[in-house]
Amino acid sequence: MNENIFNSIQEEKNISLAEQIAEQISQLIIERNLTADEKLPNEFELAQYLNVGRGTIREAEKLLISRNILEIRRGKGTYVASHTGQTSDPLGLAYMPDQLQVAKELIEIRLYLEPWIASLAAERASDDDISKLETICRDVEQLIYEGKNHLVRDAELHTAIADCTHNRIMPKFIPIITYSVNLFGTISHHSLLQETIDDHRRIIQAIRAHDPQTAQAAMTDHVLINKHRIETLEHN
Amino acid sequence: MNENIFNSIQEEKNISLAEQIAEQISQLIIERNLTADEKLPNEFELAQYLNVGRGTIREAEKLLISRNILEIRRGKGTYVASHTGQTSDPLGLAYMPDQLQVAKELIEIRLYLEPWIASLAAERASDDDISKLETICRDVEQLIYEGKNHLVRDAELHTAIADCTHNRIMPKFIPIITYSVNLFGTISHHSLLQETIDDHRRIIQAIRAHDPQTAQAAMTDHVLINKHRIETLEHN
Repeated sequence: MNENIFNSIQEEKNISLAEQIAEQISQLIIERNLTADEKLPNEFELAQYLNVGRGTIREAEKLLISRNILEIRRGKGTYVASHTGQTSDPLGLAYMPDQLQVAKELIEIRLYLEPWIASLAAERASDDDISKLETICRDVEQLIYEGKNHLVRDAELHTAIADCTHNRIMPKFIPIITYSVNLFGTISHHSLLQETIDDHRRIIQAIRAHDPQTAQAAMTDHVLINKHRIETLEHN
Repeated sequence: MNENIFNSIQEEKNISLAEQIAEQISQLIIERNLTADEKLPNEFELAQYLNVGRGTIREAEKLLISRNILEIRRGKGTYVASHTGQTSDPLGLAYMPDQLQVAKELIEIRLYLEPWIASLAAERASDDDISKLETICRDVEQLIYEGKNHLVRDAELHTAIADCTHNRIMPKFIPIITYSVNLFGTISHHSLLQETIDDHRRIIQAIRAHDPQTAQAAMTDHVLINKHRIETLEHN
């Protein structure tokens, strides 16, 4: 279905040769199952293989870099990107009018999705998964106690919880549904930070105990902090 | 949070001038709240405003077109894209190894998310929303009876159901969670097509009656057809 829609959109556009070659390189990555961090064949080989000039290959590579399908490593060459094809804002949320409303709409989805993810994590987490959660959880607490920005590591904790589901698509949803976290500044109020620490501990304890219901309830409380924060912003 | 991650990734890359200007044009679209289908200022104005050459503007525009932020309309010029920033495969699912496993992982998420979306649709749908559903539903049935490919219109029906929630982000999830529908060929078995027709009718009837529970149950049955289909593929 996506392919059909994609094709019809593409046909309407005036596709340049570089776009076509970018599509072919992209197909090559999929067909040869080139995984993240693998080096792409060099310009010369690609130009021969796809029967175009090296200038076109270079232009196509630039397009693929801008789509996060390829990445350049300085002094090393062109590689398949680490999170192939996923951009930092995959749904284009930044382009939607009324960002406070975007935040509210996301919270509705997050409040339904993330507690479920936590319950699946409690069912399926391996011992290794749990060790990883504990490490990240300690790091987040350390950053909070030191008054440093904990949000990047905090996001990694939520992604690590989604990793525990052993469904590879779940962690890809986390950056989308938590997009609004940074939108209105970091949480700075002391009591909310303490609540964050307590919630994280409760969630991880429930996952460690393989207790889906408690994990779900703890995650619900945790997401509700964000919901209340957004509602506060709205009434100011 | 996303911004932090994005910035650190960007810093590691060797950002070209065109990439920087693309980022600035993108910010311009966001700040000026240029909505889909608005014409972008011309190359000359942009070059003056951003203090770079017109060649750089052209290169930056190519990058933004490849990210579906801009689109060229033949003979008309460069416009803000209709579904700004959203690509046909926003999570890069095509690049994941084992596409049958991808389909199974997606179905798990779809089976949780889409019945909920149907129940919210039943709670919130306006009369206009319901008329729209009925029109698309009739089209899908017509296409099936004529033996034509109904999947594009079918996808539009699922998106229209998500539109009924009046949460603008819900419909953006539909192409992601239904990504696998076309992955393994269209449904051709007569009994499954009849089931599709019956399910659609039941879902829309429940939304029309503002009956969330029945809508949720009908959508669950509908998604389960796809689940069983994938399981059949797996055992062949």
